[in-house]
Amino acid sequence: MQQISFKKAAKVTLVGAGPGDPELITLKGVKALQNADVVLYDALACETLLDFAPKKAIKKFVGKRAGHHSYSQTEINELIATHAKEYGHVVRLKGGDPFVFGRGFEELQHVSAQNIPVTVIPGISSAISVPGLQHIPLTHRGLSEGFWVITGTKADRQLSADIYNAAKSNATVVVLMGYKKISQIIAVFKLLGKHNLPVAIIENGSTPQEKIVLGKVSSILEKLMDETITGPTILIFGEVVSLHPSYQQVNIPHAAVI
Amino acid sequence: MQQISFKKAAKVTLVGAGPGDPELITLKGVKALQNADVVLYDALACETLLDFAPKKAIKKFVGKRAGHHSYSQTEINELIATHAKEYGHVVRLKGGDPFVFGRGFEELQHVSAQNIPVTVIPGISSAISVPGLQHIPLTHRGLSEGFWVITGTKADRQLSADIYNAAKSNATVVVLMGYKKISQIIAVFKLLGKHNLPVAIIENGSTPQEKIVLGKVSSILEKLMDETITGPTILIFGEVVSLHPSYQQVNIPHAAVI
Repeated sequence: MQQISFKKAAKVTLVGAGPGDPELITLKGVKALQNADVVLYDALACETLLDFAPKKAIKKFVGKRAGHHSYSQTEINELIATHAKEYGHVVRLKGGDPFVFGRGFEELQHVSAQNIPVTVIPGISSAISVPGLQHIPLTHRGLSEGFWVITGTKADRQLSADIYNAAKSNATVVVLMGYKKISQIIAVFKLLGKHNLPVAIIENGSTPQEKIVLGKVSSILEKLMDETITGPTILIFGEVVSLHPSYQQVNIPHAAVI
Repeated sequence: MQQISFKKAAKVTLVGAGPGDPELITLKGVKALQNADVVLYDALACETLLDFAPKKAIKKFVGKRAGHHSYSQTEINELIATHAKEYGHVVRLKGGDPFVFGRGFEELQHVSAQNIPVTVIPGISSAISVPGLQHIPLTHRGLSEGFWVITGTKADRQLSADIYNAAKSNATVVVLMGYKKISQIIAVFKLLGKHNLPVAIIENGSTPQEKIVLGKVSSILEKLMDETITGPTILIFGEVVSLHPSYQQVNIPHAAVI
């Protein structure tokens, strides 16, 4: 009797895992995980989500973490393609949304070029959700007609020139991956005379380790001196920050306290 | 025997329903619906999601639709508060994310002022997800270091002045609720000499009725003349639009086709 081998069709699903809280994945993302042969994940928050995948599915961490081998983007692209060809359905689970500074499109391009079909399932981006969970709306009538999301660090590790344009605008400015450059970013806002603009710094948003520091362009660096911030952090600049329930308490002038 | 009445504690959960595809709600959003005494919803896409709520829960449409009474924002704010006091847990289900041009913060403020606790559950915003589902990444190394999300129509029905600033920048520009003003918006980009900038117009994103029109600042209005666009639409301006799989086909110059 002839043996027929049924090799599964290669396919890839790029799934956004959300900002950290595992319950902020979408129903569609959960369904993709339930049908995964392989899960390649990089966000620590994704680990709880692995329980949705079948027990027999291969689960591989490809992110950056102390004590782990760190994969280059080229290696990750290739891992996705080879696993799809070998095992079938690869779910590539990425923190936040795959296309917001996630290099997801590079993965899509690499895999598509090998004629492997790719489906995208959007995720909750920390840029919008982390402020929202703190009751800071990125838009609010009379205060902000839009928001600008920008990375603090470009591929060449320089401060993005768009920070200047963003700081000049009336938009709420959200900076991702910018904490290490915060002194330079604050200097840009000061140069433009925006000393009184409200600022929020949120570390580990949407998780139990969440921390928020509120201030103004003129005061935020001093406030941060007492804090140890090492986790993923987002910076929010804009009048909408003043809507945070604790903003008035921490920012009343000294004279008013006496 | 004395009868004791247990009135439920008033509370409100603001839930983002996502861009249209009902499977793009979060797990946390589903859990809130499962525990709702009342659901006040406004997006048509929310109707499938009502099945997650208990059968006995009150479900009320408070959005805008032909043949329905249209509630003012003040009326909606008050409906949320009175229903919470009367029935307990009100889920306020809103399309997209509650704080991206959703006036969600006005609802939060009104309810909080009456000492009713409010929880926010972020949703997938169409601003990021609708391009992503079409394989247009809002950020991509070498093409875009950030994105600017803006409303086409301000509260006073005028074109937002920030459109000029956004058009001047290198950011990917996403315009929500801007289709009616598209001629004016295109004029701004032309004034700034951006005739060759790629543009995508996506109607009814993430739903079976989805439609996309691709072009450049110089050609998009002509391409739209053959289309009937009446549903929710987002406009995307930026080099990243050229990454769409169909972009090259529709935008090769006539000379090259011959």
